[in-house]
Amino acid sequence: MNDNYEKFFNAEPLALKYGENPHQKAFIYINNDNAQFENLSDVELSYNNLLDINCAALIAAEFYDVNAAVIVKHNTPCGAALGKTLNEAYLKAFDTDPVSTFGATIAFSKTVDKEIAKHASSVFLDAVIAPDFDPDALEILKKNEALRIIKLITPYKTIRTMQEQEVHITPFGTLVQETDNKELDKDTFKVVSKTKPDAEMIEDMVFAWKIAKHVKTNAVVVAKDFKTLSIVGGQTSRIDAVETALDRACEGAKKAVIACDGFIPAIDSIQAAAQCRIGGIIQTGGTHKDKDVVDAANKYEIAMITTGIRHFKH
Amino acid sequence: MNDNYEKFFNAEPLALKYGENPHQKAFIYINNDNAQFENLSDVELSYNNLLDINCAALIAAEFYDVNAAVIVKHNTPCGAALGKTLNEAYLKAFDTDPVSTFGATIAFSKTVDKEIAKHASSVFLDAVIAPDFDPDALEILKKNEALRIIKLITPYKTIRTMQEQEVHITPFGTLVQETDNKELDKDTFKVVSKTKPDAEMIEDMVFAWKIAKHVKTNAVVVAKDFKTLSIVGGQTSRIDAVETALDRACEGAKKAVIACDGFIPAIDSIQAAAQCRIGGIIQTGGTHKDKDVVDAANKYEIAMITTGIRHFKH
Repeated sequence: MNDNYEKFFNAEPLALKYGENPHQKAFIYINNDNAQFENLSDVELSYNNLLDINCAALIAAEFYDVNAAVIVKHNTPCGAALGKTLNEAYLKAFDTDPVSTFGATIAFSKTVDKEIAKHASSVFLDAVIAPDFDPDALEILKKNEALRIIKLITPYKTIRTMQEQEVHITPFGTLVQETDNKELDKDTFKVVSKTKPDAEMIEDMVFAWKIAKHVKTNAVVVAKDFKTLSIVGGQTSRIDAVETALDRACEGAKKAVIACDGFIPAIDSIQAAAQCRIGGIIQTGGTHKDKDVVDAANKYEIAMITTGIRHFKH
Repeated sequence: MNDNYEKFFNAEPLALKYGENPHQKAFIYINNDNAQFENLSDVELSYNNLLDINCAALIAAEFYDVNAAVIVKHNTPCGAALGKTLNEAYLKAFDTDPVSTFGATIAFSKTVDKEIAKHASSVFLDAVIAPDFDPDALEILKKNEALRIIKLITPYKTIRTMQEQEVHITPFGTLVQETDNKELDKDTFKVVSKTKPDAEMIEDMVFAWKIAKHVKTNAVVVAKDFKTLSIVGGQTSRIDAVETALDRACEGAKKAVIACDGFIPAIDSIQAAAQCRIGGIIQTGGTHKDKDVVDAANKYEIAMITTGIRHFKH
């Protein structure tokens, strides 16, 4: 590896077993300005573990002041929920996609208790992350000798916005951009449909929107009652993303909401949403087709919010 | 931006209009060691254009010595094909997913001629990339004042392996890994099924495998006759990826091949492939379920190759 990374990141390289694949060498550079965490298990963290921990923690950090559980597989969320208790949030998140949760990483916004530890120890997981673990929860989790148990020392609230830049190296040059830390903007957040969302639906829309921000573009998140019903990302067409997300949300889509990380470019997505009885859609807005899209939402009595903000993530 | 990037990448920052989204500032650092290209249009390159150009060019570079066309949208391929002529390759790639091709970037392995330019000028595209353009082709393409026309000066063969590292900045530390430049390995490439693939099927499998390498994990590519029928990436479960890819491949899946960037963990994917009359599967192999998976392939007379190489990409 380039020795200059050491100077640039002001840290010694710590060798990892390998990178995303066994044939790739990899390192991590951790310095004093980075978020602090402790690995309470005896299992080594791999490159892919660190990617998943990062993804799960950044989504959980969007909900740092409530009970949240976020499940990540392959650097992509596959379940997220809020609950009156952390256990409720966990069970709701788990229910989104139990198949994908096999081998997943879960971030909790609050201290993990015995109830959660009992259930989590019955599932094959790669890692759990939380600001703390009750002693009896830790005892149960530690029985799984393959599980990485990560205690976050830096608060989620701080982690949330501490990354300033992203770097993407290509053979054509190196791209550097500010990290997407943009919050929802009250001045651009608008109800644009005749059907008005009630307070609960607005809260579900904001919940789904905050998750869609962390899903690869085109991202579509279907949610209801602070629970994801399906999360689809990395699609090359918006209608494919919407249809796949609706298929996976199954029957639960009725009265649920859809969040799209960009604008909806055509009425086909609204028609697909209407067929599944979706109650509300939150999207960026700002295309020349906005009027058609809002007209279609009105026709099917779907509440629609535009944010004026786009969250493409590639 | 951090002034140190300038020293580190040994280049001046060139400001881009914005990053992945309008609220993110962004720069590119280009130095003498980078691949050389020329923008023959008057349209400025955005951050997202550069991501797409990179993705399309790196996939086209896998096929630098034959006629190849690769279509990319949102930093993900949505069509790729080889042909006896470049025009044939282009039309086959276009046919994979004409909806996603709206606003896409296309990389060609060889000089673009008039026939291609005529068709491409009838489609809304963001950018075209090629080692050269015939004068009459360039004339046609330049009529579209919104199209970026990129002439690659550095050969594809060189571009293919010139990137050595990738950097992923997280609040928890900075991950650096060797770029995944691994080629198929003759020693680990094995036919593991009773049904043997013929020479043509093997070539389709290698074609699909080389594309799957550039698709986000879990990646599934369905292909036939050097043409992608569907490309699905960024999925959190392998069976979802396989089923979605088969749905999108439609009727064409009969006798087609599937490439998976990792191992197939269960027989459900083989059953789904059999229902669509898939002829062959190329995958990593190396799980404790390998025997069950190969048994299932034998049951349905599907040819199976394991590569011993994994291409996770997050």
